[in-house]
Amino acid sequence: MQVGFIGLGIMGQPMAANLIKAGFTLTVFDRDEARAVPLVEMGAQAGASPAAVAGASEMVVTMLPETPHVEAVLFGENGVAQALEPGSVFIDMSTISPSATVEFAGRLRERSVELLDAPVSGGQPGAKAGRLSIMVGGDRAAYDRALPLFQAMGNNVVYTGPNGYGQKTKLVNQIVGSLNLLAMVEGVRVASAAGLDLKLTLQAVAGGAAGSWMWSNLGPRVAEQDYRPGFMIRHHAKDLRLTVQLLEELGIAAPGAELCHRLFQEAMQKGFGELGNQGLIKLWW
Amino acid sequence: MQVGFIGLGIMGQPMAANLIKAGFTLTVFDRDEARAVPLVEMGAQAGASPAAVAGASEMVVTMLPETPHVEAVLFGENGVAQALEPGSVFIDMSTISPSATVEFAGRLRERSVELLDAPVSGGQPGAKAGRLSIMVGGDRAAYDRALPLFQAMGNNVVYTGPNGYGQKTKLVNQIVGSLNLLAMVEGVRVASAAGLDLKLTLQAVAGGAAGSWMWSNLGPRVAEQDYRPGFMIRHHAKDLRLTVQLLEELGIAAPGAELCHRLFQEAMQKGFGELGNQGLIKLWW
Repeated sequence: MQVGFIGLGIMGQPMAANLIKAGFTLTVFDRDEARAVPLVEMGAQAGASPAAVAGASEMVVTMLPETPHVEAVLFGENGVAQALEPGSVFIDMSTISPSATVEFAGRLRERSVELLDAPVSGGQPGAKAGRLSIMVGGDRAAYDRALPLFQAMGNNVVYTGPNGYGQKTKLVNQIVGSLNLLAMVEGVRVASAAGLDLKLTLQAVAGGAAGSWMWSNLGPRVAEQDYRPGFMIRHHAKDLRLTVQLLEELGIAAPGAELCHRLFQEAMQKGFGELGNQGLIKLWW
Repeated sequence: MQVGFIGLGIMGQPMAANLIKAGFTLTVFDRDEARAVPLVEMGAQAGASPAAVAGASEMVVTMLPETPHVEAVLFGENGVAQALEPGSVFIDMSTISPSATVEFAGRLRERSVELLDAPVSGGQPGAKAGRLSIMVGGDRAAYDRALPLFQAMGNNVVYTGPNGYGQKTKLVNQIVGSLNLLAMVEGVRVASAAGLDLKLTLQAVAGGAAGSWMWSNLGPRVAEQDYRPGFMIRHHAKDLRLTVQLLEELGIAAPGAELCHRLFQEAMQKGFGELGNQGLIKLWW
């Protein structure tokens, strides 16, 4: 199958690579042309624009930072929407606004193109290993057609409901993940201040009721003061802005999520945006 | 080996049972005599008092709710300390104050008895399955002697350092676990308010970077409004009081742990103390 892939960053690059390995024929695009090179070496075509990618593909995947990037790639100059054939499927795996997702889906449906919102969790390790969680919203028949792509990128693919439900599930995921991350950061800080051996503490806590992906995957990085990004603070802060918007729409208070939102805003103001999200600890350390 | 076990509650009961299954000869005691019955049926002796348990044992294990209970069992009337032979080992697996632990260890050492602080994590499922994390502080030679007991109750036994280090590691564990629990509670609340299917959301989030023990073990319980205790809110609230004391001693702020402390205090005031800690969600639900 001819598949387009737009957005070849920390996550998009390994996800596209897994599609190639699974036998899909890829046309790829990123504003930064250099990012396409490793994929072209694996056999992908480089598209000249989002429209060129769409013209060569039955399905187009995007993995972009924020809502406006997805809107621009879809409906901007040389955008995807104008070039997609009726009956094709647009799969947005970015984490963006659920309500914007519903609006984009409506505009595409006028052109007989189905949109699937399919944000992911599992970080760069999950993207590389093809072991992402993928939370899909949209038309069920389009989901069934896209399933082989999802299975090449993830091992926990969940159909959550109509358009926007994938994004809402992802925001729930980000509430949980943000607090688990804060848990890890505070645990490591207190262990260090209390004079405990960090390696032993990481081992002891990992195996009990306080165990988590964040503790096992990012705890060891923090212990070595390794702040290279698997997922950048500025993207995490954006997800928390979307979360707070959702909380406002729903009219419910969530003190933990709101605390995480404030702390990530503070981390942005202090210039930590390009660090990995484990760099949240630098607010105190 | 002759082993005493004092405190046969939700955790102590299955831990003592695993010692019997592993071939240790047990003498058991609980203020509530009925709690000894299932263990006696497995072959344990019932001791008439903590002193009677200690008189019959080379090692005595306690699994009690709070610091004053441990102090009373050790040094109160018919207490353990007066009856333990020199050279024996007292193993406190409760979660209590690290500084009180150091004091108790000093008083026992005057009688040539070593104290090991060995609090656990893994909840009731871990206790039943013999799959606890056990965080041990104290004399290394005493630890080596007690290791076969620990291995009968846990699968992740970590020697953390001198007396008090086991308890400090456990408080770090409770910071992490409390925030992971809050994460689960907020995630389920928001998923429900957003109209998402809870079962699908539990599945989608479990497999990615937001996965945790709390999400996988207590999320399904909350989704079914099952608030039976694996670990009671009043014990969790006590652990958070100890945590806040430790933070004060260390002179560091930890906004997430402090938020959890306030929320658990509120849950206590609302009369939820006897519920399982997943009942924290009843503050909002």
